Amino acid sequence: MNQDKNIVKNLNIGIAGLGNVGEGVVNLLQENSGIIEEKLKRKITIKGVSAKNKNKQRNCNIDSYNWYDSPLDLARSKEIDVFIELVGGEDGVALEATKIALESGKHIITANKAMIANHGNFLMEKAEKRKLLLLFEAAVAGGIPIVKLLKESLASNSLTKIYGILNGTCNYILSSMETNSIGFDESLKEAQRLGYAEADPSFDVGGYDAAHKLSILSSLAFGSKIDFDSIPIEGIENISLDDIHAAKENGYKIKLLGISQKTQSGIAQSVQPCLISDKSLISSIDGVNNAIVVDGNFVGTVTISGLGAGSKPTASAVVADIFDIANNSTVSNLGTPINKMKEFKIPEEVIDNNQYYIRILLRNVAGSIANVTKSMAEYNISLSVINQRNNDRNTKKDYASVTIITDLTTSIKINKVLDQIAKNGQVKGKPTIIKIQQT
Amino acid sequence: MNQDKNIVKNLNIGIAGLGNVGEGVVNLLQENSGIIEEKLKRKITIKGVSAKNKNKQRNCNIDSYNWYDSPLDLARSKEIDVFIELVGGEDGVALEATKIALESGKHIITANKAMIANHGNFLMEKAEKRKLLLLFEAAVAGGIPIVKLLKESLASNSLTKIYGILNGTCNYILSSMETNSIGFDESLKEAQRLGYAEADPSFDVGGYDAAHKLSILSSLAFGSKIDFDSIPIEGIENISLDDIHAAKENGYKIKLLGISQKTQSGIAQSVQPCLISDKSLISSIDGVNNAIVVDGNFVGTVTISGLGAGSKPTASAVVADIFDIANNSTVSNLGTPINKMKEFKIPEEVIDNNQYYIRILLRNVAGSIANVTKSMAEYNISLSVINQRNNDRNTKKDYASVTIITDLTTSIKINKVLDQIAKNGQVKGKPTIIKIQQT
Repeated sequence: MNQDKNIVKNLNIGIAGLGNVGEGVVNLLQENSGIIEEKLKRKITIKGVSAKNKNKQRNCNIDSYNWYDSPLDLARSKEIDVFIELVGGEDGVALEATKIALESGKHIITANKAMIANHGNFLMEKAEKRKLLLLFEAAVAGGIPIVKLLKESLASNSLTKIYGILNGTCNYILSSMETNSIGFDESLKEAQRLGYAEADPSFDVGGYDAAHKLSILSSLAFGSKIDFDSIPIEGIENISLDDIHAAKENGYKIKLLGISQKTQSGIAQSVQPCLISDKSLISSIDGVNNAIVVDGNFVGTVTISGLGAGSKPTASAVVADIFDIANNSTVSNLGTPINKMKEFKIPEEVIDNNQYYIRILLRNVAGSIANVTKSMAEYNISLSVINQRNNDRNTKKDYASVTIITDLTTSIKINKVLDQIAKNGQVKGKPTIIKIQQT
Repeated sequence: MNQDKNIVKNLNIGIAGLGNVGEGVVNLLQENSGIIEEKLKRKITIKGVSAKNKNKQRNCNIDSYNWYDSPLDLARSKEIDVFIELVGGEDGVALEATKIALESGKHIITANKAMIANHGNFLMEKAEKRKLLLLFEAAVAGGIPIVKLLKESLASNSLTKIYGILNGTCNYILSSMETNSIGFDESLKEAQRLGYAEADPSFDVGGYDAAHKLSILSSLAFGSKIDFDSIPIEGIENISLDDIHAAKENGYKIKLLGISQKTQSGIAQSVQPCLISDKSLISSIDGVNNAIVVDGNFVGTVTISGLGAGSKPTASAVVADIFDIANNSTVSNLGTPINKMKEFKIPEEVIDNNQYYIRILLRNVAGSIANVTKSMAEYNISLSVINQRNNDRNTKKDYASVTIITDLTTSIKINKVLDQIAKNGQVKGKPTIIKIQQT
C-alpha cells in the first residue's frame, strides 16, 4: 500500500505453451477479468503467446495477442514484464527460455515441477541476483495453494514434517481399485481412457512426479536447497487388489505418499505407497485430489486438499502468482533467501521404526505359517495381525496369500526375516512390504 | 524484491493484551527468532507491551519490553510501527485503541473477530485512507491461514460458496457427544473442565462466534461489505444425543456450519447445525479442529483444516500478519479495495431446497405415524427415511422418538406440516428440524 509509484504501470505478460494449462490461464484472465481488475491496482495484459502450432484448434481465444513462433523470442521480448513458462520438460526449451527471460530482466512463472526439482537452485540464484520473482505455485499440487502457505502463512513456524498425496494419477488408480474392485492394470487403463493417466504412465505411477513435488516442498518447509536426486522412490505398480482388500479389512487405505521430515542431522525424504488409517483425514482424499499435511511447532497440524491437476485449477495457481507479481511481492522465491539456505543433508541416523504390512504367497502346507512366525519371533518382531486368504485366483491351489501387520520394527529386520523364509522354498515371488504411516 | 530502500528499517511492534494469544505471540517471536530472521529482510522488535496487571505470573518473558499501563498509550506511542490488538471485545478499549493507532499511522494486527464483524467496514475504510494495513488472519479459524488464502491465493477466482466448521467449542461438544455417548449438558461440562468452553458458553454454543467469523469470510470471498447483523443464527443447545445417534445410523454427522453462498441477487449467510454425510471430508474434522471449504470457478473445491483456536496456533496467524507487514504487502486489507466493494445484499429469492432431518416425540398410539406421513404427503414432501426409536428414557412410556429424513423440500412446507401435526395433540415438545447440507 505504500509503493503507489511502482504500481500504476500495467503488468504485461507473455505465455509460452498453450496446452491444457496455458489455455486455462488465457480463459481465466479473460473470464474473470472483472474480479481481477477490482482487486489489483494495475491492469494485467497478455501481450504475447507462443506454442508449437499457431493454427491449431484451441479451447481459448488468442486472436488479440502477438504470436511468437519461438518461446525464446517471447522470453527476450521487450513487450513483456512476466514470462510464463508452460512448455514443460525438465530442460530443453523450457529451461533455455527461462534462463533467457531471467537474463533479460523478466519475472518468471512456471508450472514445471521437473525443471524446478532439477534446476531450481540454479534458477533461483540467478533470479535472486537480479531481484526477480520466479514463482511456481502451479508446480506443486495444481490448484492447492501450498507454496504460498509454506512461504508466507506458516513462515514463522519451525516445521517438523510435511507429507501428502501429491499425484492425482496414482490416487485415482488406487481409489478406483478399491471402489471398483479391479486390479492395477485395469484401473490404469480406465485412468488412461478418462485422461487421468498418460499413454506412458511410468512417470506418474513410478512415483517420479510426486518426488519432484516433494523435493520442492522440502525446500520450502525446511529452508534447505532442493534435492531431488536423493529421494528413494517407489511407485504403485506392485500394489495388488489383494493388498487393497487386506488393508481395508484391517482399517487401512493404501496411498502413495511423499514424506519429508526433519531429523536431528538432516532431512529424510521418501516417496512410497503407505498404509494409512481409514480414520485419518487424508484417507478420504479420493480420485484425482491431492492433499498435503504440514506440522509446525506453533500452528500444529494443517491439512489442505483440492484438485491437484487439470487445466482450470492449475491456471488458478498460475494467476495467483501473477497477483503476487502485480502486488510487488518482496517474499523470497523459496521463502528463505538463497544466501540463508542450508545445504541439503541426508540424515546420518537411520529413520526406521514403523509398523509394516507384509503380504507373502506361502506354500499351502502344514507348518509354513509357523515357520514365518518363528522367524519373526527370532528377530523380535511382534505381530499385530496375521491372516491367511485364499481368494487370489493364481494361487488358489498351491499357495495362500498371508497378510501380516507388525508392531513397531525396522524394515532391515523384516527384510532379514523374509530372506530367511525365502530360503525354505515355501515362498512364491517377492513379498510385498508396505510401511504403515502414522497420520 | 524491488523496494530495498523501504525494507532495511527494523519493524517495531507493540502488543496490547497478554492473555493466551499475546503470550503465544511473545513466545513465538522469541523461540523462532532464528527462522524469522533468516526469512525476513528486516528485524522484528517487540518494543512495548500492555495488559491489565504488570506483575501477573505469565507464561512468557516480557522483561526487556517497555510496559504500558494503558493500551491507548501504546497505540499512540512513537516507538512502534505496528499495533497488535489482543485485548478482545467488540468495542470498548479494543476499538478505541485500534482507532487511535490508525490515527497515529500504525499498521494494525488483530485477533478480534467481534470487532471486525461489527466495525470492520468502518475500520478498514479508516485504514485504507491512511494506506495502512489492518490484518486479521488470527480472527478467523485460529492457525488456519484462510484469510490469506482468500485474499491472495484464490483471489482471481469467482467464488460461489464458502462454508465450514468455524467454532472449536461446538465441534468438540458434538464430537464428544458422539464418541462418548453423552448428552449436550454433560459434554459441555467436560469441555469447560478441559478449557475448551467458557464459564458462560452461550457465545460459542449459541453460534455467535461462528457467525462473526462467517461475516468476515463472506466479505473476503465475495468482495462485499461485512454484514454480521443479517446472519440467521442457530446454536447447538437443542441437539440431543438421540439426534446424534439417529444421524449416525443414517450415515450422517451433525456439525455446526457457517455457510455463505452467492445467489442471483445477493449473498445468503447462515449459521446452524447441519447433517453432513459421514463420507464427506469435513465429517472427519473432530474435536477442537476447524475446517473451511471454498468453491471457486477455476480452482474447484479447496478444503483447509487445522486448530481453530489456542495460544500457539493463533499466535502463528498473528505472526503471519507481521510477516506481511514486514514484507510491505500491497494487498488490500479485505482483498478488494474499499471503493470497489459491493454493498451487502440479502438475496431476494428464497434459498430453501434441501433435505431435512426431523425428530418428533409422537404419542405411542395407533395411527399417529400414519397421521404424520399423511400430512407430509399433502404437502408433497416425500420421505427418504422414517424410523421409530424407543430408547429415550423420558419418553419410553407414552411417547416414541420418530426420526424422518425427507427428500428435497422447503423448510416452509415442513413447518406447515409440523404445525398441522401439533394440532392433533399427539406431539410432545418442539420437533427438531435440521438441514441436511450437501458437501
